[in-house]
Amino acid sequence: MRLRKRPGAIEILRERPEIVPPRPKELRGRWAGKQSLHVELGTGKGQFLTEMAEKHPAVSFIGVEKIESVLSYAVERNDQQDNLRFIHGDVAELGDYFADGEVDRIYLNFTDPWPKTRHEKRRLTYPTFLRLYERLLSPTGDIHFKTDNEDFFTYSVMYFSQNGYHLRNLTLDLHENEPEDNVRTEYEQKFAERGQRIFRVEAYLPIS
Amino acid sequence: MRLRKRPGAIEILRERPEIVPPRPKELRGRWAGKQSLHVELGTGKGQFLTEMAEKHPAVSFIGVEKIESVLSYAVERNDQQDNLRFIHGDVAELGDYFADGEVDRIYLNFTDPWPKTRHEKRRLTYPTFLRLYERLLSPTGDIHFKTDNEDFFTYSVMYFSQNGYHLRNLTLDLHENEPEDNVRTEYEQKFAERGQRIFRVEAYLPIS
Ligand SMILES: C[S@@+](CC[C@H](N)C(=O)[O-])C[C@H]1O[C@@H](n2cnc3c(N)ncnc32)[C@H](O)[C@@H]1O
Ligand SMILES: C[S@@+](CC[C@H](N)C(=O)[O-])C[C@H]1O[C@@H](n2cnc3c(N)ncnc32)[C@H](O)[C@@H]1O
Repeated sequence: MRLRKRPGAIEILRERPEIVPPRPKELRGRWAGKQSLHVELGTGKGQFLTEMAEKHPAVSFIGVEKIESVLSYAVERNDQQDNLRFIHGDVAELGDYFADGEVDRIYLNFTDPWPKTRHEKRRLTYPTFLRLYERLLSPTGDIHFKTDNEDFFTYSVMYFSQNGYHLRNLTLDLHENEPEDNVRTEYEQKFAERGQRIFRVEAYLPIS
Repeated sequence: MRLRKRPGAIEILRERPEIVPPRPKELRGRWAGKQSLHVELGTGKGQFLTEMAEKHPAVSFIGVEKIESVLSYAVERNDQQDNLRFIHGDVAELGDYFADGEVDRIYLNFTDPWPKTRHEKRRLTYPTFLRLYERLLSPTGDIHFKTDNEDFFTYSVMYFSQNGYHLRNLTLDLHENEPEDNVRTEYEQKFAERGQRIFRVEAYLPIS
């Protein structure tokens, strides 16, 4: 997300410790109690998760975002939902925030495609990340992945399949026949307005 | 392949028993000796396999086709290659033609998409077929799949992944960056001329 540093962003996060826990690693293993826990990685300004949290009050949502300026908008947006919190942190540290099997769903929405091969390890569907997600997901957990980037999509489908994930609800044009329960993200909205195709797939681990 | 019945087609097949073995089931397990065995399912008029056989003299190719009129053109085309034979028969009987582990590669090129859900069992990537292929493929064997039909492609990717196949070399636009070794099939040629996208993927079973 290209964006100037927002003055006062860090203060906005600090003022709402119930929404942005200052020491998220201490909550590892205790985020949701008996509720389902859904985590969005690279949550940006929070448009998607805010709407999801309104629509699904029985699910506990966490958005992980490393850039404080962006995250501050997400925090401001949340003046209602006590089932929506944020982690100001890096996906690379996900294993410190969540315990093995704690996460029921991971959303990857329009995360950076890193098109150059020398940057491929940064893609959030790269095998090292997929193995991390596998550890953190509950046995019936899954990953919901959306992108506008065709190459990132085809790579991700191959990464998923080569790492033992199975695929379902794969579409090469999500908005052609938009499912009623689809919640558009900020980026998705932008791309849709430009007439770009949205790719989507769900990946899950078979019960072995 | 829509096409009128061709008078004399059956005679054309019968005249070339070295190319169209009259009792193919008797060759089960003995098709290729020490050579690699590549089998195309629904081979049509044989354009693809004829060129493949010329380019790869050390591989033994078999085309399976159920319609004798279509197959008769493939047979006539083959006046050179002794590494190319045909089976006049149905893919449903593949297990009678080939022994377990005998096949090194299966080509599925533009086979009928059967778009209606009530016909999905006829798609040659339907799980019942994928389990049959799994049995017949050698441990390092694979399936090369091409189609112009987007829905058939997305279904097939899901069928493959849900049946334990891994995916590689997936592309949503084969001709955008056509690989040097791509051999176009008759249908592929036609679709390319109309500017339609060609989808392609390779599926293989992980060494377990
Ligand atoms: C392209 S934006 C998409 C935002 C939002 N998901 C949407 O669909 O509108 C990607 C976001 O992911 C964040 N991000 C990228 N890599 C990250 C990482 N390793 N850890 C945390 N956030 C990350 C970026 O800062 C950016 O805000
Ligand atoms: C659409 S054509 C494609 C021909 C060729 N592969 C190409 O790409 O030009 C599909 C062919 O598959 C054959 N076919 C379909 N189902 C079959 C089956 N179950 N057994 C044998 N052949 C089959 C049809 O008769 C037809 O000739």
